[in-house]
Amino acid sequence: MRPLYLSCCSSSSRYLSPITFFSSSSSSSLLAKPILPTFRTNPGFKFTQSRSRLSIRNCSSISAKPSSELRKKKGSLDSSKPEDKKLRALRQLFSKPGIGIDAYVIPSQDAHQSEFIAECYMRRGFISGFTGSAGTAVVTKDKAALWTDGRYFLQGEKQLNSSWILMRSGNLGVPTASEWLNDVLAPGAKVGIDPFLFSFDAAEELKEDIARKDHELVYLYDVNLVDEIWKESRPGPPNSPIRVHELKYAGVDVVSKLSFLRSQLVDAGCSAIVVSMLDEIAWLLNLRGGDVPNSPVMYAYLVVTMDDTKLFVDSSKVTPEVSHHLKNGGVELRPYGSILSEIESLALKGTELWLDPSSINAAIANTYKAAGDKHLESLGSEDNSKSKNPKVSNGSSGQSWGPCGVYRASPISLAKAVKNPYELEGMRNAHLRDAAALAQFWTWLEDEIHKGAKLTEVDVSDKLLEFRQQQDGFIDTSFDTISGSGANGAIIHYRPEPGNCSIVDSKKLFLLDSGAQYVDGTTDITRTVHFGEPTAHEKECFTRVLQGHIALDEAVFPATTVGFVLDAFARSFLWKIGLDYRHGTGHGVGAALNVHEGPQSISFRYGNTTPLQKGMIVSNEPGYYEDHAFGIRIENLLHVKEANTKYRFGGIGYLAFEKLTFVPIQKKMVEVSLLSDAEIDWLNDYHSQVWEKVSPLVEGSASQWLWDNTRPLVRQ
Amino acid sequence: MRPLYLSCCSSSSRYLSPITFFSSSSSSSLLAKPILPTFRTNPGFKFTQSRSRLSIRNCSSISAKPSSELRKKKGSLDSSKPEDKKLRALRQLFSKPGIGIDAYVIPSQDAHQSEFIAECYMRRGFISGFTGSAGTAVVTKDKAALWTDGRYFLQGEKQLNSSWILMRSGNLGVPTASEWLNDVLAPGAKVGIDPFLFSFDAAEELKEDIARKDHELVYLYDVNLVDEIWKESRPGPPNSPIRVHELKYAGVDVVSKLSFLRSQLVDAGCSAIVVSMLDEIAWLLNLRGGDVPNSPVMYAYLVVTMDDTKLFVDSSKVTPEVSHHLKNGGVELRPYGSILSEIESLALKGTELWLDPSSINAAIANTYKAAGDKHLESLGSEDNSKSKNPKVSNGSSGQSWGPCGVYRASPISLAKAVKNPYELEGMRNAHLRDAAALAQFWTWLEDEIHKGAKLTEVDVSDKLLEFRQQQDGFIDTSFDTISGSGANGAIIHYRPEPGNCSIVDSKKLFLLDSGAQYVDGTTDITRTVHFGEPTAHEKECFTRVLQGHIALDEAVFPATTVGFVLDAFARSFLWKIGLDYRHGTGHGVGAALNVHEGPQSISFRYGNTTPLQKGMIVSNEPGYYEDHAFGIRIENLLHVKEANTKYRFGGIGYLAFEKLTFVPIQKKMVEVSLLSDAEIDWLNDYHSQVWEKVSPLVEGSASQWLWDNTRPLVRQ
Repeated sequence: MRPLYLSCCSSSSRYLSPITFFSSSSSSSLLAKPILPTFRTNPGFKFTQSRSRLSIRNCSSISAKPSSELRKKKGSLDSSKPEDKKLRALRQLFSKPGIGIDAYVIPSQDAHQSEFIAECYMRRGFISGFTGSAGTAVVTKDKAALWTDGRYFLQGEKQLNSSWILMRSGNLGVPTASEWLNDVLAPGAKVGIDPFLFSFDAAEELKEDIARKDHELVYLYDVNLVDEIWKESRPGPPNSPIRVHELKYAGVDVVSKLSFLRSQLVDAGCSAIVVSMLDEIAWLLNLRGGDVPNSPVMYAYLVVTMDDTKLFVDSSKVTPEVSHHLKNGGVELRPYGSILSEIESLALKGTELWLDPSSINAAIANTYKAAGDKHLESLGSEDNSKSKNPKVSNGSSGQSWGPCGVYRASPISLAKAVKNPYELEGMRNAHLRDAAALAQFWTWLEDEIHKGAKLTEVDVSDKLLEFRQQQDGFIDTSFDTISGSGANGAIIHYRPEPGNCSIVDSKKLFLLDSGAQYVDGTTDITRTVHFGEPTAHEKECFTRVLQGHIALDEAVFPATTVGFVLDAFARSFLWKIGLDYRHGTGHGVGAALNVHEGPQSISFRYGNTTPLQKGMIVSNEPGYYEDHAFGIRIENLLHVKEANTKYRFGGIGYLAFEKLTFVPIQKKMVEVSLLSDAEIDWLNDYHSQVWEKVSPLVEGSASQWLWDNTRPLVRQ
Repeated sequence: MRPLYLSCCSSSSRYLSPITFFSSSSSSSLLAKPILPTFRTNPGFKFTQSRSRLSIRNCSSISAKPSSELRKKKGSLDSSKPEDKKLRALRQLFSKPGIGIDAYVIPSQDAHQSEFIAECYMRRGFISGFTGSAGTAVVTKDKAALWTDGRYFLQGEKQLNSSWILMRSGNLGVPTASEWLNDVLAPGAKVGIDPFLFSFDAAEELKEDIARKDHELVYLYDVNLVDEIWKESRPGPPNSPIRVHELKYAGVDVVSKLSFLRSQLVDAGCSAIVVSMLDEIAWLLNLRGGDVPNSPVMYAYLVVTMDDTKLFVDSSKVTPEVSHHLKNGGVELRPYGSILSEIESLALKGTELWLDPSSINAAIANTYKAAGDKHLESLGSEDNSKSKNPKVSNGSSGQSWGPCGVYRASPISLAKAVKNPYELEGMRNAHLRDAAALAQFWTWLEDEIHKGAKLTEVDVSDKLLEFRQQQDGFIDTSFDTISGSGANGAIIHYRPEPGNCSIVDSKKLFLLDSGAQYVDGTTDITRTVHFGEPTAHEKECFTRVLQGHIALDEAVFPATTVGFVLDAFARSFLWKIGLDYRHGTGHGVGAALNVHEGPQSISFRYGNTTPLQKGMIVSNEPGYYEDHAFGIRIENLLHVKEANTKYRFGGIGYLAFEKLTFVPIQKKMVEVSLLSDAEIDWLNDYHSQVWEKVSPLVEGSASQWLWDNTRPLVRQ
């Protein structure tokens, strides 16, 4: 059987497939059933797939922190002291009036299913002490268990104290969290959750799973039990000022975007939509924020009806400029905390809401349902003749049909994924400045290593940040840099820790996957280099990864081709010698937004059937990883463009890729004899473009480095 | 949107995807809902997908007929005379006591969901006069309509008389048959079917669809209304003698196969299985028959319980040798017509049956259900304490749960698809003799054309049959030869008709797709050639098809890779210039059995998630078709073998292909400048193998032709 495959590279949480990762694909919920055949999925791991990650940065800052800083504050979440006071305190709350539960589930998520979350929402990390990006904690009156996957078994063992059971998801015989609850609780128990932290889909699945043992899922709307015990030590909510994303970068104004959205609502028979994905709100309103690391977003909800647009956000983040911008767009402000009362009032008016069940939280969805039922009851008592309307229930709540709402993938996800010419121009420009920073960085690093400097993976990562910070419009990293020397390069989710990381030297391969947020675009690039003499084996593996990278880059395909159809192109050269990699080949990337976005992906998983479309951006990042030895990955970002094919069979368009990333690929690593003439031409053409586009942005030794590294490769 | 794609080549009914074509894949039923996204499927065409085809051959013969003969008897099914007496006679039966229906549905199928069916079962052809391979006739008291797809619109117009409405499936606004029934019948009507001619899945879907208008689906078990009016002119049932498929070809004896099957039953919690697919019965019992054209099978059912094995077959077909063979295998004989009483008796004993709902007919499935209910009622009245058993219903029939049966894909399908070394050896040998026949044929044809002979597509096809008939162990064609000159080559399902077909000459491309049944194997090969000077455009298209063929042939991939993952390899070179083809790339092939078999396929459709496995056989047949101009297809059969890769990443095996077909690919058609060195090497290596393997089997001019056509291609 094929081993469990992970999907997508760059940062720890990226290894989860876009299929379960992004709200707009068919299944992204925490508890979603695996779409894929069992031989490719992890049957025990339904309950710990997380979009969130722990990262210890100041919530109110939007300026990037060097890797060395990122690690220092980790102690603040550490709970691994002898008797677990936190668990005791949590359990005491179970029997409080108005609560009355037998177990409490603490997922990794925030209320918006974000990939990167603010520290104040890292409740699972606080209660368990486990700081991995993926994990779900479940606490009963006498037991506490934490589910995580293979990437974090060692970390879990280290960080969890003896009060906790580590559940190694995916290992034989390890139950899912709901199976475990069904096992350890006496039938008819009450399992509490914070309904804000579960997508509607996820909560429904959990409810159904535990109903098998007659357990009841209890939604605790008013209080998060972990916050109750976290109290003073809990960081404040993030309050970075929001900024306007200028029209020259956004390309389309807010009024036009809202008008498009409303036309989608009309087509779907809805009269309003609730948007909770933070990148969707930022994109729709041409705003950017600094509430979470790596993603330029702000915590907010958005409600768009046919008549008005309400942004639910902490007003302290709204600058006068933003306030003016919103007024121009016809957007009213409401307090972040008042979203549920708005939902209730919409339901009581009988508003048909569009809700994306994979991203909208259960608090909102269930408030809407409950208030909707109330609305129908009142209609029923007013006028019994209306009871013929199929939407009007017989009054027994719970079984009611309506005001139904439309549960489907958000229309904003696809609109956001298809970039307009301004967004593309911003992406192109940001990539050139990013390439200049990388040219300077590689020049510096090669020089240091040849001088014999002892640089750690963290030193190197910090220096890269310095170079990027000098570029115009730099805002933040787009994910925590993966700086992996030698064997660490084989740990796909590797993040170096200061004081406990390897030296980057001339004896080992060095894999560097990093990206930045600029005012006009988002980057994500991986290069793998050797500062000394690579072995023949390393060169063969690198060359086959490169051949796969080239094959995908050069693909031409009919419009409406689904991403997974192209995935095998990137693997076929590795397959020829019995090698492969355990992650997807490409993910969507936002324009000056999230470095991971849906709905498209290029993956061996075939659950996501979103066709690639002109204007989308995807990464091209095949790799190869040899445990305890080395890792190789070559990643560029690509823009899906129209292909000017000689023919158009079937009367449809054909698509191809435009490269956005322009950084040399180390020629030393290439085993030329494996390449075809066409592949050599590709590499030489790419390097000539790199020189042409990036050389005007660098000077001195960096210019010389760029020249040296873009000279044509010649077959011996 | 991508246009409607058809799938798989070679004979008319092959263009239906294996997904809807073979019983063992996930959806093969006549009425099955499309698995694929709507943009790839034909929404109006749920009701005419057919496994059967009309072919006018004597049912009792197993010797092949030349194409010229095949067409001659067509008149016998012709009904296009002025007043439609057949329809009148059919409608008179509607109100007969014991029938009482308002409409009757006549599909193309026989009772076994066969691809090729005996003439006596071509009821749709008889009643409508329409002889296309795919079509469904529906007759109400005052209307008659026939659904077929785009391949047959012209033929339908020609063959249907004015009493019939031609329903052009797939055209905008054309309803499905069930939509039409819901439209034209007054609510609460009774729609009759012969339940033997519908798979269980198909009947259930039809029932559900028409229930929307409160119509009832009436199963007429005892009489087929078309047979009633066909009467004397109806051909007798086929009665070709059955023969033993020798152990040296089958590789595994019947006792072992039955023992394996019983172990599968135990694993599934069943105590018996009913097998209705004719190739599954033939494979399991190491028997071959001659009841239908092209497939060496006999009409039969098989019931295997833990204790006994019963073959339901017309005893006149059972020779003493077969009788002895069956006795040795512990197989008892029963009359073909007694299957339902056997099913009833099994149900009454409470036997848990394994039924493949996509292939088992509704007559069997419903007999089992009804008798099972009776069994449970009797249990209930005997002993009320047993009513706790969840399988025991509350007695109200229709809502009963059991004796449930297990409805899942037949275990024989996969076992049959994975060939053993003896079957593979037979396939290899049959392919070499077939290659010898083709070498002789091409030698003859080139010679004739250069002499200026005026040969029609049918003449050519007949001559090919002659050469094959001279080979040892030849039994039959494996499908009707597609012999397409010039523009006819672009009609993917083309079958030339005598008196109305083109000349094969030196001015046009000629596409020849043909295959044979030998005692030891089944072949299927397509070559496209030019006897004069091909245009640059024809050469470019041919070369890109060849590049796709090579890419798939050379693929190496992890075990458990699903067929559709490889499909794009075969298209990518065409895609680069905006070309494509509207059929799948590969289908499974039986060993001395059906030329199309599941469960695997290699297709752009991604509904079929069967992994390719070592031992399977698939076709590799990319193509390109330019309407009104020419068609190109290059087809070899491939055996899925273990790849001896240098590494085995993930600890799993890697797979590759072994070629079975050894016939030259015309070098004149190759635009060498488009090929990489590796592709030229592939072609030269293939041709050197062709010479090595086939030259010992030919002599004289054929040997010279083989020599000339296997010389290396050299880059200018």
